[in-house]
Amino acid sequence: MSEVEEKAAKARQAARRLAHVPVGIRNKALLSIAAELVNSCKYILAANTMDMEAGRAKGLSRALLDRLLLTPERVEEMALGVRAVAALPDPLGVVDGMQTLANGLQVGRIRVPLGVIGIIYEARPNVTVDAAAVCLKAGSAVILRGGSEAFQSNLALVQVLARAAVDAGIPEGALGMIETTDRAAVDELMKQRAYLDVIIPRGGAGLIQSVVDNSTVPVIETGVGNCHVFVDEGADLDQAKNIVINAKCQRPGVCNAMETLLVHRAEAASFLPVTLEALKERGVEVRGCPATCGLVPWVVPATGEDWGTEFLDLICAVKVVEGIDEALDHIYCYGTGHSEAIVTRDWSRGRRFLQEVDAAAVYVNASTRFTDGYQFGFGAEIGISTQKLHARGPMGLKELTTYKYIVYGDGQVRS
Amino acid sequence: MSEVEEKAAKARQAARRLAHVPVGIRNKALLSIAAELVNSCKYILAANTMDMEAGRAKGLSRALLDRLLLTPERVEEMALGVRAVAALPDPLGVVDGMQTLANGLQVGRIRVPLGVIGIIYEARPNVTVDAAAVCLKAGSAVILRGGSEAFQSNLALVQVLARAAVDAGIPEGALGMIETTDRAAVDELMKQRAYLDVIIPRGGAGLIQSVVDNSTVPVIETGVGNCHVFVDEGADLDQAKNIVINAKCQRPGVCNAMETLLVHRAEAASFLPVTLEALKERGVEVRGCPATCGLVPWVVPATGEDWGTEFLDLICAVKVVEGIDEALDHIYCYGTGHSEAIVTRDWSRGRRFLQEVDAAAVYVNASTRFTDGYQFGFGAEIGISTQKLHARGPMGLKELTTYKYIVYGDGQVRS
Repeated sequence: MSEVEEKAAKARQAARRLAHVPVGIRNKALLSIAAELVNSCKYILAANTMDMEAGRAKGLSRALLDRLLLTPERVEEMALGVRAVAALPDPLGVVDGMQTLANGLQVGRIRVPLGVIGIIYEARPNVTVDAAAVCLKAGSAVILRGGSEAFQSNLALVQVLARAAVDAGIPEGALGMIETTDRAAVDELMKQRAYLDVIIPRGGAGLIQSVVDNSTVPVIETGVGNCHVFVDEGADLDQAKNIVINAKCQRPGVCNAMETLLVHRAEAASFLPVTLEALKERGVEVRGCPATCGLVPWVVPATGEDWGTEFLDLICAVKVVEGIDEALDHIYCYGTGHSEAIVTRDWSRGRRFLQEVDAAAVYVNASTRFTDGYQFGFGAEIGISTQKLHARGPMGLKELTTYKYIVYGDGQVRS
Repeated sequence: MSEVEEKAAKARQAARRLAHVPVGIRNKALLSIAAELVNSCKYILAANTMDMEAGRAKGLSRALLDRLLLTPERVEEMALGVRAVAALPDPLGVVDGMQTLANGLQVGRIRVPLGVIGIIYEARPNVTVDAAAVCLKAGSAVILRGGSEAFQSNLALVQVLARAAVDAGIPEGALGMIETTDRAAVDELMKQRAYLDVIIPRGGAGLIQSVVDNSTVPVIETGVGNCHVFVDEGADLDQAKNIVINAKCQRPGVCNAMETLLVHRAEAASFLPVTLEALKERGVEVRGCPATCGLVPWVVPATGEDWGTEFLDLICAVKVVEGIDEALDHIYCYGTGHSEAIVTRDWSRGRRFLQEVDAAAVYVNASTRFTDGYQFGFGAEIGISTQKLHARGPMGLKELTTYKYIVYGDGQVRS
């Protein structure tokens, strides 16, 4: 039996018992994990140093090295995050829709764990801790497979987490990490339909596409966001400028950042020169349609490809449109169903945008940057789903559960 | 462009508009479909006669021919079904969880259509009408691919349905059928991730497995049910007998029928001879464990394979167990997560069974045959999901929808 199959089978066995571990013990385990992270900080940092050295030797970019780096403060932050998950309400056991049928049967739905969740992710070691904590709270076993750059850090973290969890009464095997580093192990993990209930890929478009294409385990697709802000005719242009700057610059490397700005032709001359200058001041490279370039000479002409690109960087595509119809068509054509915003003063067009844009989150007069489990008040987040099945948008604890029907009878049979 | 890609792309275009077609028009279209089914009965029956003749020539079994057969009464029943769907409440547009965040943003979730739903199914032409009606009501376009035995019937039905729908204001292409009859068309349909949001296979285990293995479009797995009834120590044995007979015999060919009976050792001697005799009288072949065979001499010894088989027939496997632990282990090992029942008088064991059995529907003192969208009061059903993502158990209109977040602001940006 390969490592992948063995760990998946073990996780399945653990999940069966974990499903009935009371929330008191799950929370105790989380608090104990938080404490052990801090206690084992030196051990974790030593492992991280190995990754950092290997990363430097491999010539990883400074940005990537920064994501990889752990410090005492960052370990403390991880522990704080785990404590916050412990403090959240239990998503399990909630019964809804309980009703009595004409024949006297009572039928309702109860929230139960998904079972075994696979998480495939890239460089950042904090995902290891976040994902483990959230899955454990939601009563599911988890199999983690992080990026090779963070291998030693992840291994050390999982050892600390698993020991603390087991000591607190969590079944062994509920928290597993695939240690085989070759790519084939990922492919194998995606075929463990007998043991895994869902796989959540977290990372770049390439990783997600590969999981979607190859997994026989159901997948929740996350994260690719080609987000737009449409500035409507008659919009409050100061408000629009604030929103555009925030959506583009506040954190350009994340999925809910704006990638393309759409501006109504009637506002283009008054809005674009000022706003694009403000973007430029913040280091943004602007790539515009011919009308935009006509208004702001320093703008680089956009290529067709720019409209479909998630830059994840200080780059912004800009297009002048004839009106809301063209804006909606553009978003339909190039959007990835993540987050889309209109800035408008018009009631009907606001309503229409909300109704017609098919995305996980649709905004009127606010920055797309709010699409986030913490911002939405979930208290935790395991990713942002851009698919329509099961969960859409930020996924919190509830989105990591499922339900089953429970039926109470006193001898009913079907006639 | 192949037929499959062309119809899928057309359905996607139609879905964009269909998502905003008011419920009044969707209902009008359904009523008009119901009327047209009855008006076009002769045309439909003529097409069905072709299928029946081809089926007889191919030597289809009597049971299969009966499923295939349409009569004026059956067409009338289809029309009644469509009218019933028209009468159900609209699942779309319902907003829930609307809340105001500290920064004044209002965030909530609104029910919206899935988009484009692919349905791959086998012989029965009534699925064509049911599936089209339910998807249309739920605001999604649908691509149907039925069994080759029912090709002419399905083609005639879809022509009637599509014409009535378009005349009532439904976008053209919202109701498509794949007419290419070779197997490659199904494979192609399962790869249309750009156009389809979900595929629901309805049929035997082979069909479902093939879709699960090959689809890149998200799948909702339906229907395979290896269901158990466990008769606990101290159970009301008359009640248990009624439930067992109902679960096995009321309709043995369906997924929520019981396949294996588990009986506590303490009740075996008083329960099994009488109950198995009653099953035998109803034409059931009984395959038992050694203890069962010892108590009832005419019982055929079960093979290891019998415990894992969904017979879908008048065959019943029977096993004597030492207690609820062994029953739970057996169900964990062989169950398919569909419907499981305990017959008991004991409060704690009833609670434990409800909690520990991981299945779409878990029963205390009732027949597994109730796992059904109509029985549960949904008014319509598109299948019974045996997976944990998105929907579990009977899927009604709501399970054919998704949600999106809507966010109302007045200029909020993230700090």
